[in-house]
Amino acid sequence: MTKCRYRDLALTIGQLPTGPLNAITDVAGVRVGHVTRIEESPRILRTGVTAIQPLGVPYWQETVFAGFHSYNGFGEVTGSHWIAETGILTSPICMSSAFSVGVLRDTLLAHPKQNGIDDRWHQPMAGETFDGVLNDGWDGPVTRADVIAALDAAAGGPVAEGSIGGGTGMMSFEFKSGIGTSSRVTATTCGSFTVGALVQSNFGNRSELTVDGVPVGRHLGYEVVDSPQRRDQGSIVIVLATDAPLLPPQCARLARRGGIGLARVGGFGSNRSGDFIVAFSTGNRVPFNEAVIAEGLRMLPNEAMNPLFRAASEAVEEAIINSMTMSDSMTGVDGTTVHALPNDKLVEVMQRYGRGPASAT
Amino acid sequence: MTKCRYRDLALTIGQLPTGPLNAITDVAGVRVGHVTRIEESPRILRTGVTAIQPLGVPYWQETVFAGFHSYNGFGEVTGSHWIAETGILTSPICMSSAFSVGVLRDTLLAHPKQNGIDDRWHQPMAGETFDGVLNDGWDGPVTRADVIAALDAAAGGPVAEGSIGGGTGMMSFEFKSGIGTSSRVTATTCGSFTVGALVQSNFGNRSELTVDGVPVGRHLGYEVVDSPQRRDQGSIVIVLATDAPLLPPQCARLARRGGIGLARVGGFGSNRSGDFIVAFSTGNRVPFNEAVIAEGLRMLPNEAMNPLFRAASEAVEEAIINSMTMSDSMTGVDGTTVHALPNDKLVEVMQRYGRGPASAT
Amino acid sequence: MTKCRYRDLALTIGQLPTGPLNAITDVAGVRVGHVTRIEESPRILRTGVTAIQPLGVPYWQETVFAGFHSYNGFGEVTGSHWIAETGILTSPICMSSAFSVGVLRDTLLAHPKQNGIDDRWHQPMAGETFDGVLNDGWDGPVTRADVIAALDAAAGGPVAEGSIGGGTGMMSFEFKSGIGTSSRVTATTCGSFTVGALVQSNFGNRSELTVDGVPVGRHLGYEVVDSPQRRDQGSIVIVLATDAPLLPPQCARLARRGGIGLARVGGFGSNRSGDFIVAFSTGNRVPFNEAVIAEGLRMLPNEAMNPLFRAASEAVEEAIINSMTMSDSMTGVDGTTVHALPNDKLVEVMQRYGRGPASAT
Amino acid sequence: MTKCRYRDLALTIGQLPTGPLNAITDVAGVRVGHVTRIEESPRILRTGVTAIQPLGVPYWQETVFAGFHSYNGFGEVTGSHWIAETGILTSPICMSSAFSVGVLRDTLLAHPKQNGIDDRWHQPMAGETFDGVLNDGWDGPVTRADVIAALDAAAGGPVAEGSIGGGTGMMSFEFKSGIGTSSRVTATTCGSFTVGALVQSNFGNRSELTVDGVPVGRHLGYEVVDSPQRRDQGSIVIVLATDAPLLPPQCARLARRGGIGLARVGGFGSNRSGDFIVAFSTGNRVPFNEAVIAEGLRMLPNEAMNPLFRAASEAVEEAIINSMTMSDSMTGVDGTTVHALPNDKLVEVMQRYGRGPASAT
Repeated sequence: MTKCRYRDLALTIGQLPTGPLNAITDVAGVRVGHVTRIEESPRILRTGVTAIQPLGVPYWQETVFAGFHSYNGFGEVTGSHWIAETGILTSPICMSSAFSVGVLRDTLLAHPKQNGIDDRWHQPMAGETFDGVLNDGWDGPVTRADVIAALDAAAGGPVAEGSIGGGTGMMSFEFKSGIGTSSRVTATTCGSFTVGALVQSNFGNRSELTVDGVPVGRHLGYEVVDSPQRRDQGSIVIVLATDAPLLPPQCARLARRGGIGLARVGGFGSNRSGDFIVAFSTGNRVPFNEAVIAEGLRMLPNEAMNPLFRAASEAVEEAIINSMTMSDSMTGVDGTTVHALPNDKLVEVMQRYGRGPASAT
Repeated sequence: MTKCRYRDLALTIGQLPTGPLNAITDVAGVRVGHVTRIEESPRILRTGVTAIQPLGVPYWQETVFAGFHSYNGFGEVTGSHWIAETGILTSPICMSSAFSVGVLRDTLLAHPKQNGIDDRWHQPMAGETFDGVLNDGWDGPVTRADVIAALDAAAGGPVAEGSIGGGTGMMSFEFKSGIGTSSRVTATTCGSFTVGALVQSNFGNRSELTVDGVPVGRHLGYEVVDSPQRRDQGSIVIVLATDAPLLPPQCARLARRGGIGLARVGGFGSNRSGDFIVAFSTGNRVPFNEAVIAEGLRMLPNEAMNPLFRAASEAVEEAIINSMTMSDSMTGVDGTTVHALPNDKLVEVMQRYGRGPASAT
Repeated sequence: MTKCRYRDLALTIGQLPTGPLNAITDVAGVRVGHVTRIEESPRILRTGVTAIQPLGVPYWQETVFAGFHSYNGFGEVTGSHWIAETGILTSPICMSSAFSVGVLRDTLLAHPKQNGIDDRWHQPMAGETFDGVLNDGWDGPVTRADVIAALDAAAGGPVAEGSIGGGTGMMSFEFKSGIGTSSRVTATTCGSFTVGALVQSNFGNRSELTVDGVPVGRHLGYEVVDSPQRRDQGSIVIVLATDAPLLPPQCARLARRGGIGLARVGGFGSNRSGDFIVAFSTGNRVPFNEAVIAEGLRMLPNEAMNPLFRAASEAVEEAIINSMTMSDSMTGVDGTTVHALPNDKLVEVMQRYGRGPASAT
Repeated sequence: MTKCRYRDLALTIGQLPTGPLNAITDVAGVRVGHVTRIEESPRILRTGVTAIQPLGVPYWQETVFAGFHSYNGFGEVTGSHWIAETGILTSPICMSSAFSVGVLRDTLLAHPKQNGIDDRWHQPMAGETFDGVLNDGWDGPVTRADVIAALDAAAGGPVAEGSIGGGTGMMSFEFKSGIGTSSRVTATTCGSFTVGALVQSNFGNRSELTVDGVPVGRHLGYEVVDSPQRRDQGSIVIVLATDAPLLPPQCARLARRGGIGLARVGGFGSNRSGDFIVAFSTGNRVPFNEAVIAEGLRMLPNEAMNPLFRAASEAVEEAIINSMTMSDSMTGVDGTTVHALPNDKLVEVMQRYGRGPASAT
């Protein structure tokens, strides 16, 4: 069965239109890069790195405002203390395996210096989810070179999804998943803005998978598609970007609303789940560590934020679904296989509940 | 059309069973009291006070652990600073109109002293939602006597719902609403526990009303049931109680998961919404301000909390729905009428999406 | 003994110069008003209201960015949820007795409406400290009219200190205190800015009073000046204002540094102390609830904030001291007398530790 | 000049007595280990690792309650999300160079598995301060073996201080510093408890160094002791331990009071400072990830916590001073020398301000 994006199944989520790419890169300037490490020897690797560069310029030139939200704290995203303190994201956002988040962080710290940039102190943002079901990663196979390669690969345009980059070895709702992305364009009283989401998704119990309100997981149990069972574990890292001119508290508001999409798709913030959301705005660009007053900053009025809240929720929900509909089955360490979500059966269930083209709704 | 509870429509939400009363009072010891002020002169009042007493003893004897979560901060719940500092709820929780939260707070502060209890300092918890669509309350008609009466009326057993107490003048999803409650009983590896929710619900856009994943609001637009339109405003106060032996951070975890139910029913944390959740546990009882070590406290392992998270989400979702299915239409100030949710039409839509007794699902 | 400000004793605190008034009103536009209620019958009142208006225009026209910090949470400041959510202060800041914070809040809520301003929803900020040692306030003698009068009285220029307004019945370090204020002017790489502090101070144990590092309290024990002993209780509300163009997270940073001044003067955040700090910036003015993008906002670079941190610490420290050096002894309910800090003895101790004009330091 | 601890100079800080070792290890069960890497080739290393094991048993058997506070967020301490979520410290606390915190985190993650312990997921806590003034560490010379060695070296008893372990290359107030520790024993209404502090101190401007209220830094300027000037940069990691039976929110309260000691010694939470405090209690021991209810937990009443607040402040203040008085001058990369605090001159200044044995105070 060929994998495809959720919308290619003639299904939708929510009420807002997507951007042209239906990806986080619909927010102008945002760049995404992947490095994938699928190796069979000397040991079985199913891992990689995904890097998000917020702007089209090096991060040591300009930074963006950002907010952070912990939906459940069993995991690690470094760099959040500085966002809590100042609301400024001074770093790319890198994601990888739980085994390797430290390598990402240390590599990012030294990155400007290695590019000849002195006195550019930043707080590296590196996140993780656990890929040990498929990946033999205990001694941290991800290298500094992998991180640099992902940063260098970052580009605009369409974003590869599924089992790629940091998402290579992930599973969601006990189906194979990985990286997913989506976007929404939304009209406010102050103009139209784009909200994009990218997720490294690795959480969820089969029975709770919900798509556009439909209890899909109840109809796609283990008797339909087998799975290594991993109840109430796993994690997700969610990145939200928008071109709306937000100030730091507004980015934090947006990050919290990303949790609405997570809730709707079946996320409970389960005990052993590290569910973190970072949201940034490219609508204001702030010089990096300069000692001059930043002039001309703009703030969308809070009164106009509701459409963005909806957009964040919808984009997160669809990005999570895309991370599954775009992933093929994968076999990894110890011969374990995580099966793909059967897209055809997904369509069947959705139609049964009044969704999709064949539905009368 | 006679109003009834959601389950009396032969519909369910979620997968967990309810407690015997399907109410917050299924948590032993929790007591609820209402005072309702519906008056036509000298001015039109549609308001009241609802009081929740966490334990079967006076709050100046024993207290409970609690956690607090702001889902969106446009509103007031007093007393949250002390919960943030210590995780101890030293007060009953009173709810009323936005016009009157100060009266509730000042009355609660003096309440122990007026009962002859000296040196019992507590931090009063009083919350509010805005009933000005139906209630002429600008000069704060709720009195100290009303607050005391609601406290005195607090009792276990079935809880009156709909347009009563603090919920008298409220509306949700542009239907009449008010107070709603629900509960769940859930098995953990450490035994079975009850989670109960009570809401004073006053938020939501019609088009976003979602019941058990079904987009009900899209089918019950203004052409079906008219309404004073109040887009993206309004608020909700959610109280969660459980008999599971939780410590303060676990109560805060539960409070945050109450937000999952709010998200699923269509809550976006809209800009002008004050959406607050307080969760407390009766599973540990703490002496009030005593200078002795509290012995014998118990903590449910975090590993066993996932069922409680689901219970909180389900109970909040159903409590919000009950606040509507139990409310009759009401006419108030300026002759404004807020119409009831038509329960029969709700059932029709639910069936159309495969829910309910006539469904083949 | 005539009371005077600390600097009039030829003593200083810190290293930065004060503004011309050495008051929060050195920040242009900030206005302060007091209403004092000293009555002997029908019962003994020693209370009042202090109001701070952040700008020279009505708050329903323009608002300011703000941050909030709870140094210890045993007390109430309403309106903090909205600052946490958006970083915008939409209200004047009113302070009074612990008995009356609810009246302040309810009055503020209705205030714009009563001025003919519709659809101007704000979140009232009202704080309190406990004046029950001197004031018979259990049934809340502060009235709505008192609150309005304090708001109306707000003006720039010199600020009355000591036993006045909300500070009328307060005590600090077991000396009589009340309202105090101070300011600092500080040079940054981006220009010179003013930081002003105003406190309603009502906390502290005698033995821990520290002035400019000198353990004054150890030398001014009960054998020197008697006192109703109130160990480890009491509270303080601290307001910081600055004309530096700060964004909300930077205001929160400033608020937290106000805690440094509190720590240095001997504040431990004692268990029964409600110690809250709100900081706002007049350097950006934000339309109230308008649905247009705020243009031209400015942000002092975080790299330039260190001088403001020092200024906040010094101004808070001196404002607390001023609240004592400016208060006369007062006798109140039950004939209780709280004695003034003896300024002459303060000078003696300071000189003994190398401070002041007669010192060789 | 021989280095010694502050108390060996016949000086004191605060009013509470120390424990027998005046060290964090006065809290029974707490273990500290150091690995120091001082190397001249192939490049100049002045770095190391310090590990704190909270209990006398492996951390994968029992855990402790903890709280976390960010005094200023320019830095990294991993593992804080899980403490925010649950208040449980599941990991040792390791500290090292800013270059290497990722290595510490990744090593800790795999540590239980490498000891044959399966299914023991924890959230590693690793902190850092910047030693690049003396240490050539850009490519992360600290190894996994170093981290394991520090963990293995952890023991009770006296704690080595100064330029050792993670503190090897640090400087405070522009004097050489590193690791420092101190403790206090304090009587509460519920018995006597110990509070211990250990710091890796690397912050502060010379002019602001304050010892027991004395403005030492003003008297020990660059003309007295030269220094590479590093104004308003640097960081500190503070660990507080107590045997008082605290619950998680109480640990967080204690952590915040650690900031009082930091404020008093001259810490402003400067912009480029990563100042973090973690506090844990050995007074309750919680099984690691077990699925049984923890029984018999104890909670010191909040009413009895004030003495602990004082103890935390005093211990932090003295631990910072010890980190300096115990450090010799050190020369590192590029021939840079960071000079020791001259203990004899410190004594002179203290005496001038009425402190110490020769003082008349």
